[in-house]
Amino acid sequence: MPKPQKHVFVCVQNRPPGHPRPSCSQKRCIEVAEEFYWHLQERQLFDKVQVTTTGCLGPCSEGPSVLVYPEGVMYGGIDKADVAAIFDEHLQNDQPVERLQVSKEFWG
Amino acid sequence: MPKPQKHVFVCVQNRPPGHPRPSCSQKRCIEVAEEFYWHLQERQLFDKVQVTTTGCLGPCSEGPSVLVYPEGVMYGGIDKADVAAIFDEHLQNDQPVERLQVSKEFWG
Repeated sequence: MPKPQKHVFVCVQNRPPGHPRPSCSQKRCIEVAEEFYWHLQERQLFDKVQVTTTGCLGPCSEGPSVLVYPEGVMYGGIDKADVAAIFDEHLQNDQPVERLQVSKEFWG
Repeated sequence: MPKPQKHVFVCVQNRPPGHPRPSCSQKRCIEVAEEFYWHLQERQLFDKVQVTTTGCLGPCSEGPSVLVYPEGVMYGGIDKADVAAIFDEHLQNDQPVERLQVSKEFWG
């Protein structure tokens, strides 16, 4: 198994209704994770890109959160429709998508 | 919330008994994750180190698996007793612990 050039971490943290802290699961992060896996398969990038689901990544209010290493780029408010751009621009062309990143207040 | 200098990902993947693929949960990875959180608290490294639990990281046969970014160093066969060394040598002194890394066959 190769070490990936890009490793995508998708938060799938859940919290019960009424919990004071929001969670990515409340904001349909599962669809986001599925979309990453779909593109990985569709584009056959298994040797270059790895996708892993995670517990809480931190900036819960800004979720769904997606973190890409080795750069350490934190994306926020991601929905299914954003995933193709992250593949096209960042994962396959090494240009992180500025407009989808959380502000420095949350990760900087 | 600061971007961490070191981000530790601890696999907590579970699989049912009899599943053909081993899992880190069968090999007491929960204790490993708890030990990372314990040291993080004890050493008060919240501004420098982040610890996140994950689904499968890949090298299941070599688990429990622990991955550190931005370097992309994959540790295997980690137990509670190894965690202090990862803090001392790698997370706080920037020297990855060679003896605990998986071989290139599994991550290289």
